[in-house]
Amino acid sequence: MLYFIGLGLFDEKDISLKGIEILKNVDIIYAEFYTAKLFGSTLSSLENIIESPIEVLSRKQVEEEDIPIKSGLNKDVAFLTAGDPLIATTHSDMVIHAKKRGIKTQVVHASSIISAAPGLAGLQAYKFGKVTTIPFPEKNYFPHSPYLTIKANMGIKAHTLVLLDIRAEENRYMTANQGLDYLLKVEKERNEKIITENSIAVIIARAGSSKPLIKANRIHNLLNEDFGGPLHSLIIPSPLHIMEAEYLVKVAGAPESILEETI
Amino acid sequence: MLYFIGLGLFDEKDISLKGIEILKNVDIIYAEFYTAKLFGSTLSSLENIIESPIEVLSRKQVEEEDIPIKSGLNKDVAFLTAGDPLIATTHSDMVIHAKKRGIKTQVVHASSIISAAPGLAGLQAYKFGKVTTIPFPEKNYFPHSPYLTIKANMGIKAHTLVLLDIRAEENRYMTANQGLDYLLKVEKERNEKIITENSIAVIIARAGSSKPLIKANRIHNLLNEDFGGPLHSLIIPSPLHIMEAEYLVKVAGAPESILEETI
Repeated sequence: MLYFIGLGLFDEKDISLKGIEILKNVDIIYAEFYTAKLFGSTLSSLENIIESPIEVLSRKQVEEEDIPIKSGLNKDVAFLTAGDPLIATTHSDMVIHAKKRGIKTQVVHASSIISAAPGLAGLQAYKFGKVTTIPFPEKNYFPHSPYLTIKANMGIKAHTLVLLDIRAEENRYMTANQGLDYLLKVEKERNEKIITENSIAVIIARAGSSKPLIKANRIHNLLNEDFGGPLHSLIIPSPLHIMEAEYLVKVAGAPESILEETI
Repeated sequence: MLYFIGLGLFDEKDISLKGIEILKNVDIIYAEFYTAKLFGSTLSSLENIIESPIEVLSRKQVEEEDIPIKSGLNKDVAFLTAGDPLIATTHSDMVIHAKKRGIKTQVVHASSIISAAPGLAGLQAYKFGKVTTIPFPEKNYFPHSPYLTIKANMGIKAHTLVLLDIRAEENRYMTANQGLDYLLKVEKERNEKIITENSIAVIIARAGSSKPLIKANRIHNLLNEDFGGPLHSLIIPSPLHIMEAEYLVKVAGAPESILEETI
């Protein structure tokens, strides 16, 4: 048996009771923190709660050496990931592999930025389009795809949740400032007036913590602000409903001028 | 202080440890089950875990009589909802009201169908477009909006998560069969060839339980199948990536012919 158990958004207490119950009964517990990680917690605080050791696996151990699948052949195995499980494609792959080998699987869900962000920002969840991720740019690598996703979403009047690159192995986490800067650079190259310094953006930092930061403003007012520690994410809204705009003004410090731009 | 605490997807053990910890320390606990409810659980099993009573409020008590907000003026109040909090617009409204009255708020996130469905279906989360809900049709009320959302999403190559109407007060929960039938009826009226009997749909039933049903097939093969108890939801995918199709064949029983229709 192979359990995929989500750790949720922020710390060792975002896992569900169901997850804890299963962890207390399995033979081996693995975790991976290369697709995402918890910022409010250490591994040992989770180990203390479940009173068992957790073995953290590298990408190579999971994807090439197939350690969780091999252990699952004759043991009850839990595989922990930050957020809600199976969001990363590499985990759906593991489900297929387990199925091929006759190993039963069960998913224990948890909180995810995908459902948390709309609510925290007071934006209507059913108005969100495709999610996109901004990667760290490199020499000869500066994809326009995040911008193009925002453009496509705007075409159907949908907001965009923009996730920011995580390179856990190098301890690099893209800030909201870097993300906004990236989008403005694409705008400069394409000149399609999709995202300008005057556009509204919503910053969400440390979602799942007791004091997440939610800040909405025109991009030029956000570029040089310090939003504190990771993780950050962004929302680029399509035209706002009046109730959404009111929330951003009252709760996220947006300027009142946005109330006049609603649909 | 007003805590919005998510109960997650299915039963009393889908709440987070953080949620339980807060519930053990607040003065009053309210819950609403009119926007959604837990199917795998009773109120008393949750009350047993937290060792405190929970008062279930009606829509009128929450939205007109403002009971949670009024209690929050001088007490620590928890407000429980199924799924992840603030997904329903009515809850974001409560955050604004609390803010206006100087009441601090905190959100404790939990699992939601919005992030759970893509993973369970093996579909790439970043390829989902807008979520839509199919309402129970009534005389002179048969909106085409769910169909139009699917059409708009397909236009940007996005999958659609289709939620199905919940009328908790009347104990009516739309089945996946009724949802598919609704979409085919809209197709018949519009004749735009967006959703036909030959289209692929994915059924998800009882997400969050230990044995959720995940079934993919052409719609004509699904229409008369029995998917068991509530809640059901649907996914109408846009053209599939080969890995997504492989998952649907291996894990969700889709016919192998879909492997030849991938992009």
